[in-house]
Amino acid sequence: MVSKKMLDLGTKRSVIRDIFEYGSKLAKEIGAENVLDFSLGNPSTPAPREVANTIRYMVEELSPREYNSYTSSAGDTDTRLAVAKNLNQRFSTDYNEQNIFMTCGAAASLNIIFKAIIESGDEIIVNIPYFPEYKVFIEGQGGKPVFAKCSENLYLDIDEIESKINENTKAVLINSPNNPSGVIYPKENLEALAELLKQKQKEYSHPIFLISDEPYRELVFTNEKPEFLPNIYDNTLVAYSWSKSLSLPGERIGYILVPNKVKDHGEVFAAVGGAARVLGYVCAPSMFQYVIKNCVDAQPNIEVYRTNRNILFESLPKIGYTVANPGGAFYLFIKSPSDDGNEFCERAKKYHMLLVPGEGFGMKEYVRLSFCVDTKKIEKSIDVFKKLMDEYKL
Amino acid sequence: MVSKKMLDLGTKRSVIRDIFEYGSKLAKEIGAENVLDFSLGNPSTPAPREVANTIRYMVEELSPREYNSYTSSAGDTDTRLAVAKNLNQRFSTDYNEQNIFMTCGAAASLNIIFKAIIESGDEIIVNIPYFPEYKVFIEGQGGKPVFAKCSENLYLDIDEIESKINENTKAVLINSPNNPSGVIYPKENLEALAELLKQKQKEYSHPIFLISDEPYRELVFTNEKPEFLPNIYDNTLVAYSWSKSLSLPGERIGYILVPNKVKDHGEVFAAVGGAARVLGYVCAPSMFQYVIKNCVDAQPNIEVYRTNRNILFESLPKIGYTVANPGGAFYLFIKSPSDDGNEFCERAKKYHMLLVPGEGFGMKEYVRLSFCVDTKKIEKSIDVFKKLMDEYKL
Repeated sequence: MVSKKMLDLGTKRSVIRDIFEYGSKLAKEIGAENVLDFSLGNPSTPAPREVANTIRYMVEELSPREYNSYTSSAGDTDTRLAVAKNLNQRFSTDYNEQNIFMTCGAAASLNIIFKAIIESGDEIIVNIPYFPEYKVFIEGQGGKPVFAKCSENLYLDIDEIESKINENTKAVLINSPNNPSGVIYPKENLEALAELLKQKQKEYSHPIFLISDEPYRELVFTNEKPEFLPNIYDNTLVAYSWSKSLSLPGERIGYILVPNKVKDHGEVFAAVGGAARVLGYVCAPSMFQYVIKNCVDAQPNIEVYRTNRNILFESLPKIGYTVANPGGAFYLFIKSPSDDGNEFCERAKKYHMLLVPGEGFGMKEYVRLSFCVDTKKIEKSIDVFKKLMDEYKL
Repeated sequence: MVSKKMLDLGTKRSVIRDIFEYGSKLAKEIGAENVLDFSLGNPSTPAPREVANTIRYMVEELSPREYNSYTSSAGDTDTRLAVAKNLNQRFSTDYNEQNIFMTCGAAASLNIIFKAIIESGDEIIVNIPYFPEYKVFIEGQGGKPVFAKCSENLYLDIDEIESKINENTKAVLINSPNNPSGVIYPKENLEALAELLKQKQKEYSHPIFLISDEPYRELVFTNEKPEFLPNIYDNTLVAYSWSKSLSLPGERIGYILVPNKVKDHGEVFAAVGGAARVLGYVCAPSMFQYVIKNCVDAQPNIEVYRTNRNILFESLPKIGYTVANPGGAFYLFIKSPSDDGNEFCERAKKYHMLLVPGEGFGMKEYVRLSFCVDTKKIEKSIDVFKKLMDEYKL
């Protein structure tokens, strides 16, 4: 009656979403304040004041037709120019509206890119640990995900990536600051990747894209700054979203950047438009396009994330946990004392603490904690982590 | 380098969008007031006051986290209940949130339905005249569109549909009030279709869906009311959007209705969720989900459309044009005096009047006029139509 694949994807749903819905039910039973729900990357800081101010201005001063109407499929020109200008100022680039395609958020950006570039037999290299939906999206758009293990400190393992590249490799996908680890890949690591890709492009006589999924670019806690990939490697496509940086996850607003330096830039941008069309994306939500036009320079409020990050990153190693260094994003990736993340998550549930098993991210010995929550819950969690560690010592 | 299909879809773009962009350029050259742009179905009446009032309330009284956060992928429960309640009151049904899946507008609704139900080899019957993107969407989701001619008055031709049904038929797609003709299919016509489908389901021992694309359900100018299809045929899936009824085309907000009477309702609803996931639709835009929760009973303002419709439907036949009877929507489907719609559109351009050739809608002897514009432009157009008719009399 229905597509078996879709039924399967709809039934065996995203593990993260399932835990989130379990958490919502539990909250109704025992009160939200008693559930340490660290499952979902739903920003806990509200959108910056500029966003509500812009919306208030729109409804008070403009005619609804000025902000509720269709825009062109690539997005409102002034919005795209504002995004380009913001990038130009920060990264010394020379983009204009022809480089920016507005989308319904990061999931849309990625699916549109995959649909635009993948042809039959194409492989996309995905670096472990990775956001689980990457696999769903790549397979959904007809590609084959090929997974590359990371180095011990959770950086890119260049030798491993090299061993996975072959003539069918269409792209390498990276995500820094990383979900689930919070790790920011250092410049040398990325330059080594760029060198490898340049060499492989020559060897196979066709371009290999670097797809940079960057929803966490603005969420950085230390002096490490995420590199701007198009300045390191020409054939870079950027998938961006304001879900995390402006705390607008439900509004579905993001963009795809196709720099001029991408080979056959015009064709790639046209294929992006074709892919958006065939996936049913008529235009990005128009009111939030206008919000972005006015708020693209707004600064995210990351103080609560920084506080939470510091508490966790100081306390957990002292208790005996091995954790990745979260330079950015709002996730802590914690090694289970039993080397079994699933088992650790089940134990944590007893204390009403909800974590996501690392298995779906490609590292089953880990668990992911989202610290985009009230600091009180982070403080409460330290005791739970102690009790859990004590259980392993029995 | 990129997918040839996507490049093709991005280059040979939607004819309607191309004319619209030609019109935008022309408006910059000679002034928008001098372009009779009847190309796009972009509502000319602003969204009802309730929409801006709800948004103002949200930004003034609520925390942004209450409206900018992720909702569950099927949508906010209260919003889905409000939609179900609205349908129950109007159509004596008994829906709840388990029947409503919130989407990013009609294009998303349709693509998600097609992706959910289509398996290899499946055919979808599309009734002529039809919205051109149906072909793109069905093919994009792996199905084969099979086109069925209409009867002389542009109703469904039941014999023609019967001749197109075979064991591979997964669904029949209809759209009433119709884009591009404005025609509302009468009850007897739809009941005859339902009878045919019931018989064919038995014959082939598998369900055949009726997909009802209903963005124009609320835009009706006469006493003819569009039938509510789920009350006529059990295996009906409804694709809805508030783009036209609440004048919110840029905001991308709509829903899919999966009634309980649909065979294996739970599986179909799950497959809809799987399809939304794999197409990158994380959730429908959250702020506008809350708008819908509060404005689902708001009445569209269709007086300007009615005025425009009446002027055109009275004047054009007097000048000698053959036009379909626009019971709803905001389109007039006009037969070219030369039986060649492309040629007529080119002639009209000389007078800065932009119409869409009927070819893309499956009827090349016609042209489509969107009358969701200022009445002044409709009045101006009458003279142009006279001049054009005079040209054919020379």
